[in-house]
Amino acid sequence: MKIGIFGYGNLGRGVELAVNQNDDMEVAAVFTRRNPETVKTAFEKTKVYNVDEVDKFYDDIDVMIMCGGSATDLPSQSKELVKHFNIVDSYDNHAQIVNHYRNVNEVALKSEKIGLISCGWDPGMFSLNRLYARSILANSSDYTFWGRGVSQGHSDAIRRIEGVIDAKQYTIPVEEAMNRVRAGEYPELSADEKHIRECFVVIKEGYDENSIREQIVTMPDYFAPYKVIVNFISKEEFDKNHSSIPHAGNVIVCGKTGVNQDVENVIEYSLKLSSNPEFTASVLVAYARAVYRMNKIGMSGAKTVFDVAPAFLSKYDGEDLISKFL
Amino acid sequence: MKIGIFGYGNLGRGVELAVNQNDDMEVAAVFTRRNPETVKTAFEKTKVYNVDEVDKFYDDIDVMIMCGGSATDLPSQSKELVKHFNIVDSYDNHAQIVNHYRNVNEVALKSEKIGLISCGWDPGMFSLNRLYARSILANSSDYTFWGRGVSQGHSDAIRRIEGVIDAKQYTIPVEEAMNRVRAGEYPELSADEKHIRECFVVIKEGYDENSIREQIVTMPDYFAPYKVIVNFISKEEFDKNHSSIPHAGNVIVCGKTGVNQDVENVIEYSLKLSSNPEFTASVLVAYARAVYRMNKIGMSGAKTVFDVAPAFLSKYDGEDLISKFL
Repeated sequence: MKIGIFGYGNLGRGVELAVNQNDDMEVAAVFTRRNPETVKTAFEKTKVYNVDEVDKFYDDIDVMIMCGGSATDLPSQSKELVKHFNIVDSYDNHAQIVNHYRNVNEVALKSEKIGLISCGWDPGMFSLNRLYARSILANSSDYTFWGRGVSQGHSDAIRRIEGVIDAKQYTIPVEEAMNRVRAGEYPELSADEKHIRECFVVIKEGYDENSIREQIVTMPDYFAPYKVIVNFISKEEFDKNHSSIPHAGNVIVCGKTGVNQDVENVIEYSLKLSSNPEFTASVLVAYARAVYRMNKIGMSGAKTVFDVAPAFLSKYDGEDLISKFL
Repeated sequence: MKIGIFGYGNLGRGVELAVNQNDDMEVAAVFTRRNPETVKTAFEKTKVYNVDEVDKFYDDIDVMIMCGGSATDLPSQSKELVKHFNIVDSYDNHAQIVNHYRNVNEVALKSEKIGLISCGWDPGMFSLNRLYARSILANSSDYTFWGRGVSQGHSDAIRRIEGVIDAKQYTIPVEEAMNRVRAGEYPELSADEKHIRECFVVIKEGYDENSIREQIVTMPDYFAPYKVIVNFISKEEFDKNHSSIPHAGNVIVCGKTGVNQDVENVIEYSLKLSSNPEFTASVLVAYARAVYRMNKIGMSGAKTVFDVAPAFLSKYDGEDLISKFL
């Protein structure tokens, strides 16, 4: 199976690493908008091309993994690339997923390719766990908690404040709220009751900590009305303790069974990831395998993780799969 | 969707309750080997027939949920019933699943029905979580812990000892072993290092506690070489505190990513069930919905949870499903 990587940031690099862990696939090419010679890949053997050369690979790539961002890249790139390739993307703008699905579906049905959208862990594995658990427990509620982990969007927002050199924002779930859910209290919780936000910020000399703190905690959408902790630290401390991109999260579903609807059941799925982009990439690569197989048997159009039978994800099949995992 | 229930013990009753929670399906009939008039169902409206009358229902039941036991009922019943019905069973004898799959598959392909085997939570939801996580993390190990919960098989084994009136055995996971797994130690653990077994036993007057304790802890396969705790209690205490059938368990998968295979990721799935049979039944009912839909579009043969695209499980579909859960 020949994999293409479209875009080479943290996620693209993660895909390169994940493909290397699987002996049934290889990276055929990385595509970048930069000068290919300036891109340093994880492995020397990996070949890098400019995105303009992608048309030379129509017959040589089985699945293209889209590694651009959801804000501006994927909405246009996924529907463009699926004209010629099976693709997997990690589009994560929840409010716009249905639109993105329609756009990709229209093109993919014509090209007879598969466009698997919104893959990763949320949307992705968390979505699957909401769907499975809510389908099993008809009388149930689901709760998603994120963290402790780095939110790239919130970190970027802090970096845009004048006087900020670097910043990282950790989303932290409120343990007490999680325990209320697990105890079967079925609480109504707003996003800011479920999470607090802790920031580590490096500022330029001459800028006022209090003023920057105020700008952070009052920033609409991003920080207000959350509980926000702001720590000012040195560049050295930042580089030493805040250079990785960990993340984590929990999906908890509580549901009742029994004649009197009073029998409690709790299903919980949790992730603890030392590297968010490397894990997300690993999900995309497993789904690339599935997309390849599904297209081989004649399926096409836009798909989500909901449409993929789990067996397609594994390098094992048939009775082997049953013996190993069932 | 018309559901049949074949066998009416705790599991069959759980199916009756679960179907009642879903407005797109109803129980068409319960089949029993007993005199139907002696069977007390959860709801008065539920109709009970003798198994001999099942041939009258070939056209009136969309999916038959098999609620017999794995030891003697399902190996013969599932392959017999799938001649005429789509079926879902909870066959859980891991060592024999491949054989059972072959037997059901042969008949189901001829009858053009679907025989979904080994559904429930283990095998079932736990199997799915092993498969998903191990497919995503190519360099990984999986660990399954059961409990705290009642093992019916072990409870039965104690009850067969002379002088025992009643007994319940709780399987309890060793917290320290779970924490070693979560910490990324990748320990090698035998089953008895992962679990301890606690028994609550009611004995007849005149029998010796020490002798019965000895018979329990030395019982091969079931108890030796596990750490076993035996508590002798009165019939009153037994009825008061040990009448329900709770269970629980965890699947933990740890895997490494990164250029140097040193980046740790932990995926954990856990269940806490106040009623094992009611939850298992809820899984079977969700899969009955999937089987009905898959057969409608022309699929047939033996299937497992690995073959079922998650979307088939939900009463929602298409863009609704995306908006609600993705």
